[in-house]
Amino acid sequence: MTSVLKWIESNRQKSVDELIEFLRIPSISTLPESGDDMVRCAEWLAARLRTAGLTRVEVLPTGGHPIVWGEWMGAPGKPTILLYGHYDVQPVDPIEEWETPPFEPAIRNGNLYARGACDDKGQVYMHVKAIEAHFRQNGKLPVNMRVLIEGEEEIGSDNLDNFIAANRDRLTADVAVVSDTSMFGKGIPSITYGLRGLAYMQLDVTGPRRDLHSGQYGGAGRNPLLALASILAKLHDADGRVTIPGFYDQVRPLSDAERKEFASLPWDEAALKKDMGVSEFWGERGYTVLERMWARPTCDAHGLWGGFQGAGAKTVIPSRGGAKVSMRLVPDQDPVTVGRLFTEHVRKLCPPGVTLEVKDLHGAPAVLVPLDHPAIQAGSRAIEKAFGRAPVKIREGGSIPVVATFKNLLGLPTVLAGVGLPDDAAHAPNEKFDLENYQGGIRMAAYLYEEMAGIR
Amino acid sequence: MTSVLKWIESNRQKSVDELIEFLRIPSISTLPESGDDMVRCAEWLAARLRTAGLTRVEVLPTGGHPIVWGEWMGAPGKPTILLYGHYDVQPVDPIEEWETPPFEPAIRNGNLYARGACDDKGQVYMHVKAIEAHFRQNGKLPVNMRVLIEGEEEIGSDNLDNFIAANRDRLTADVAVVSDTSMFGKGIPSITYGLRGLAYMQLDVTGPRRDLHSGQYGGAGRNPLLALASILAKLHDADGRVTIPGFYDQVRPLSDAERKEFASLPWDEAALKKDMGVSEFWGERGYTVLERMWARPTCDAHGLWGGFQGAGAKTVIPSRGGAKVSMRLVPDQDPVTVGRLFTEHVRKLCPPGVTLEVKDLHGAPAVLVPLDHPAIQAGSRAIEKAFGRAPVKIREGGSIPVVATFKNLLGLPTVLAGVGLPDDAAHAPNEKFDLENYQGGIRMAAYLYEEMAGIR
Repeated sequence: MTSVLKWIESNRQKSVDELIEFLRIPSISTLPESGDDMVRCAEWLAARLRTAGLTRVEVLPTGGHPIVWGEWMGAPGKPTILLYGHYDVQPVDPIEEWETPPFEPAIRNGNLYARGACDDKGQVYMHVKAIEAHFRQNGKLPVNMRVLIEGEEEIGSDNLDNFIAANRDRLTADVAVVSDTSMFGKGIPSITYGLRGLAYMQLDVTGPRRDLHSGQYGGAGRNPLLALASILAKLHDADGRVTIPGFYDQVRPLSDAERKEFASLPWDEAALKKDMGVSEFWGERGYTVLERMWARPTCDAHGLWGGFQGAGAKTVIPSRGGAKVSMRLVPDQDPVTVGRLFTEHVRKLCPPGVTLEVKDLHGAPAVLVPLDHPAIQAGSRAIEKAFGRAPVKIREGGSIPVVATFKNLLGLPTVLAGVGLPDDAAHAPNEKFDLENYQGGIRMAAYLYEEMAGIR
Repeated sequence: MTSVLKWIESNRQKSVDELIEFLRIPSISTLPESGDDMVRCAEWLAARLRTAGLTRVEVLPTGGHPIVWGEWMGAPGKPTILLYGHYDVQPVDPIEEWETPPFEPAIRNGNLYARGACDDKGQVYMHVKAIEAHFRQNGKLPVNMRVLIEGEEEIGSDNLDNFIAANRDRLTADVAVVSDTSMFGKGIPSITYGLRGLAYMQLDVTGPRRDLHSGQYGGAGRNPLLALASILAKLHDADGRVTIPGFYDQVRPLSDAERKEFASLPWDEAALKKDMGVSEFWGERGYTVLERMWARPTCDAHGLWGGFQGAGAKTVIPSRGGAKVSMRLVPDQDPVTVGRLFTEHVRKLCPPGVTLEVKDLHGAPAVLVPLDHPAIQAGSRAIEKAFGRAPVKIREGGSIPVVATFKNLLGLPTVLAGVGLPDDAAHAPNEKFDLENYQGGIRMAAYLYEEMAGIR
């Protein structure tokens, strides 16, 4: 590893220059006119993976943007890593808020500013350079390697599950590695071992069969918007707990060790309030904000509609109104069960005189990789060696659906080893990547392959 | 009158054809792009009033849409009627629920379907034809006539009070006549002596300063849509009473005579349920449905919005949401006072962690005309002659703010002689006007002018 690290250090500038090339390609997956740029970006990345040393690299078509796939299987008897990432990026609106153009990467104060800098091109390219470092110095990798870099992560990965199902042979592995998450803070290397799941529902309440004049009919019947409000208002109790009977039955409680670990994190309450723009926090009583965001289930309304939404006054009793509501789930809640409990509950909450339709729009289970899993242990050692400090064990409140896909379709545990920072502005103007974290991330990846060599 | 009635009967088809022309003009006052159509509609109506026989007819500008004014003062010593109506109409949303396009009038089963058919173009045009009938057959009207047809009734008549105050000379009269109300039912001619008032409010709730990812942030802060729901859900108690402190303090109780009259009406519970399309009624406990609709104050939500309303699932904690809410008022509730009480109440109901903005969009007091007034008696006789049956005395749940204006600014009592039907779907898709009632309404108007000749 000494020589590998030396190569990484002496190629520091080159690693940045190449990433800048990668970032210049405007691979915004959601724009219809990006087609050529998406292909150009995939081809560029494939060429770099070949240069790095992978023996087979292909740009494979999907129903949408192509997937970059590659492998090196020259370590018989050793584990195989499936490395996942994405080369597509978010749109750039509002463009006027960028200090420098999103596809003209610029370095300021040790940060590289560009769309995709941390999400996820920078974190993908860390691995490209780590692979290259091993090949240049040792002529091989410590493990077998398969690479799957998609171009539709920012638009829902619609073609990914089908691709994985149709290409199991190309993707057989022992562990998945994803670098698309954040460290808890600058100088606080982290390993993410838990993600929340989701049960996403829609409520449609119908009152009168048509919109009624509120003067003529007001007082006769139930107003569907007020009926909807009365349902939504009863989803939480005064303690901020979700009122659905049985909702918490499957929840795996936080362990004392986890609560202690979370509590030890240098968490900045004022910074989060400022980021959110709220004067106070609110949520389930008895848990800290971090616990609530990472490891407790929640229930939120995402959309609300009905009747007259324009300027001025229209005096109608609308025929119907609706809401989108989802629950973030934690282990071991089952999305289907939760969806059913939710449906039963809101049916009971619905007042007479209106009808309620409930749809279960989609669900995903939470993910928890056991902290004592050899892959997590290997990841932790790699992070510690790369950053000089043992990683904190954190969870994230969101979902990364591919992690569930890897588990369900390929039976793989996933190591989430990300080096983004909370203020990297992924999805927002002036996205950046900390260049120290980039360099540390290359070291981390190089160590990770070596550490993974021993996991079975 | 015999020849006048004969003329009305022999011009039946022409009256319908002309009304259809009137209804083809999409005079939706709330749409900014309607400006030209509003002017065109006003000019069209003015031309018709000139053809009918009025000697001075003008389209007069206001701060908004123009007012059609006209007069014939050729009956010295006789009373002067001020005829009020409106040529503007409600928006057409949801457009997909119309069986035929709202501005392509269509006749089905003896009904004329179009936006504005009964509210209020059809009822305005009854008077145009009744005026024309008198002039064609007698060369004069039995009374002096002043006409005021505005174009902003559906958007709050913002410029009407100023216009009336600035044009008192043009509007001096003895009694106002308004045909913008409904009969109790088909074959049950009615005279309306009471109207409810209105206090129309808007609520805007703001949570985070920007839309947040519900995975990353869910559990940290108050969801503004759920906060809004929790406010709306508390506007009524379990007895269907409005919870605003002081809301009922100014309410004039129903007299025993009124409750008896209401109870004697051939009210068809099943028909109203079918018309509304609801399985059961709901409202303030201790009052009949008719009492609740006509003579008790109510509170309804008209619109609800916030966050993601499209198809599928978007996991956002929206920054804000809002609602339109109004209260129907009865004598002697004051709209300004009620607006203030409402504002204080919802501020108290608003949970911490979000901010609430409350706007008072507009208000109007309720109206009650004494049943023994000579103009009401004259109106009753005209209705009886036109429809062959004495009218029932009813109230209506809606508001006609101009009635209060006529009383306050011009000192006029108003006769509310309307021939709409409860199922005419004013403000809703498939608005219609019963063509028998249209024809009977023309007769009624013709009789009314004659009956009014003797009121002083």
